[in-house]
Amino acid sequence: MANKQANITVLQGDYIGPEIMKAGLAVLKAVSSEGFNYQLNFAPFGGEAIDQFGAPLPDSTLDAASSADAILLAAVGGPKWDDNPERPENGLLQLRKKLNLFANIRPTEITADAMKYSPLKIYQPVDFVIVRELTSGIYFGKPRELANDGAFDTMRYTRSEIERVAKIAFDMAVQRRQHVTLVDKSNVLATSKLWEKVFHEVARGYPNVEVDRLYVDAAAMKLISVPNQFDVILTENLFGDILSDEAAEITGSLGTIPSMSKGAGGPVLYEPIHGSAPDIAGKGIADPLSMIRCVAMMLKYSFNRSDLSQQILDSVDAVASQGINTPDRGGDSSTQQVTNKIIDRLQKNT
Amino acid sequence: MANKQANITVLQGDYIGPEIMKAGLAVLKAVSSEGFNYQLNFAPFGGEAIDQFGAPLPDSTLDAASSADAILLAAVGGPKWDDNPERPENGLLQLRKKLNLFANIRPTEITADAMKYSPLKIYQPVDFVIVRELTSGIYFGKPRELANDGAFDTMRYTRSEIERVAKIAFDMAVQRRQHVTLVDKSNVLATSKLWEKVFHEVARGYPNVEVDRLYVDAAAMKLISVPNQFDVILTENLFGDILSDEAAEITGSLGTIPSMSKGAGGPVLYEPIHGSAPDIAGKGIADPLSMIRCVAMMLKYSFNRSDLSQQILDSVDAVASQGINTPDRGGDSSTQQVTNKIIDRLQKNT
Ligand SMILES: CC(C)[C@H](C(=O)O)[C@@H](O)C(=O)O
Ligand SMILES: CC(C)[C@H](C(=O)O)[C@@H](O)C(=O)O
Repeated sequence: MANKQANITVLQGDYIGPEIMKAGLAVLKAVSSEGFNYQLNFAPFGGEAIDQFGAPLPDSTLDAASSADAILLAAVGGPKWDDNPERPENGLLQLRKKLNLFANIRPTEITADAMKYSPLKIYQPVDFVIVRELTSGIYFGKPRELANDGAFDTMRYTRSEIERVAKIAFDMAVQRRQHVTLVDKSNVLATSKLWEKVFHEVARGYPNVEVDRLYVDAAAMKLISVPNQFDVILTENLFGDILSDEAAEITGSLGTIPSMSKGAGGPVLYEPIHGSAPDIAGKGIADPLSMIRCVAMMLKYSFNRSDLSQQILDSVDAVASQGINTPDRGGDSSTQQVTNKIIDRLQKNT
Repeated sequence: MANKQANITVLQGDYIGPEIMKAGLAVLKAVSSEGFNYQLNFAPFGGEAIDQFGAPLPDSTLDAASSADAILLAAVGGPKWDDNPERPENGLLQLRKKLNLFANIRPTEITADAMKYSPLKIYQPVDFVIVRELTSGIYFGKPRELANDGAFDTMRYTRSEIERVAKIAFDMAVQRRQHVTLVDKSNVLATSKLWEKVFHEVARGYPNVEVDRLYVDAAAMKLISVPNQFDVILTENLFGDILSDEAAEITGSLGTIPSMSKGAGGPVLYEPIHGSAPDIAGKGIADPLSMIRCVAMMLKYSFNRSDLSQQILDSVDAVASQGINTPDRGGDSSTQQVTNKIIDRLQKNT
């Protein structure tokens, strides 16, 4: 990778999107002085693309995304497009589907230092990962209908859709603490019964990984009561949407969490888990850590540069532990101040 | 009501079910010495009914439930029936559907005294109610199919199913703080778009009630970050299942929360929100407060005896504030000791 130029497509999106993307790219530039060779390809996406092209995922953007080595996405959507026939968020759903990004991976970490940010009275560090199926289930299931007197949606899964994402969860567990928890509603749903069955079949290929399962309602409780007991949580699309946001909230540090969405080969998409935060856009106070951590994740997983990735993460931690934070974590620094400190620190250590 | 005999069907269910039901009924007996005339009709339900009749909701139990003035249910299910072709929980789903109990109402309260039990670092009391649709959505939607290579479920709602439960939520808000929050996933689901539409139509009939809405993922966050901002939350069946368990968890007092499920007339069902707790069954340490509070709820809502209901709630609070609790809330009293103290207190005050 040292010589080949990495081709990164950048989707800044809306509201605070461009603000935090700027921070992430500044950190990328700083760290790459150590011999990471890349080119950026900016493409309109979400509300920005609706304004320019009338659609949240124009063909040119889809092309740029498909042909990239990795995609950095900030955040899309906001009140400006509330009455638009097509919403910015729909661009996100289309992008996931078209690039077949079937696994969304979201880490939830509460280090000893960060316990103070958690809304929970917790006394032990938390470190788990949610693997959410991202391109099927009730998000995409056909048929669906909306009429005046009634409506329906279809939650649909094929065996192979479950298998491929389950394998990703087990592969992650092998690199971690060897434990996968399936979350389903198999006491009610037919799809969940299939998930349970396929899950146990896939588990046979990983004899050293311990497994258990929870109903989704019980999981919503245990994320609060015993978050330190999880390692890898595997679940379907809608449950993953709900539980991964709940998991983010228990850290109290929504603005710091990255995620990755990947398929079978092809570009991986890196994206903060929070939204476009219209309420603070333009004020220069958005937390840049989520986007900066997305850059670190990308360097590690798409470009095999764990070294650079770790330098970024260490600098982020060092700056945070000096109390230099944006207002969302009780600080009074701006997006740019935090970013500059991280870059200073990076340059000092290299 | 003073003279007519109230006809109460009792479904004890499984594991700790009979233990907590015994506590609830002892309190009912004590309080009824002041002129509440009732008769109890015990019927097998859940696992107990599977053992006796091969089915979790035998016809005789359904008859007893339909013809009652009110139904007290403790809890069903457990490992004993895990491999039974029909699960005890299925009796619960059938009972809801057959009695048309379309609205499940669950209070979430954290008083100043009870903040210490909450897993959250909270500094303000919490007091909201979740109104969950209970007889439709993906729990009952047809078609559904489970095959070896794929499966699907249908989430389905009619306009009138939404209307009737929305009215219950608005009627409750009128008695409370005049605020209803709809929780949906209208950025993705057709059914949620119908919910949103019908919700705003019903709202027009309640000009003094403020409304807003949240996506279900955002709601899962806000139950943790700002639980004190809710008054009445209205949502569909599956979202309600997840969110109401999450809401229960933030109180840290799962064993103390009652619920009611009602339709348009007909008997109302009162039930703790927790399950049958196989792990502590037979030890005599199950928390009786949820069941005792169910009895208080029943006296108020089914029999118009707010006086007796309030006497029970006051006695429950008095005993809890003396630190007389079962182990789930850090105490060392047994189910029976707590119950006896509550009865003593009731008798002292009457
Ligand atoms: C914007 C929305 C469609 C999306 C989802 O539900 O997947 C978001 O909540 C997320 O989790 O990425
Ligand atoms: C046991 C199960 C089918 C049930 C449900 O999902 O409705 C339970 O979780 C509940 O909330 O009463």
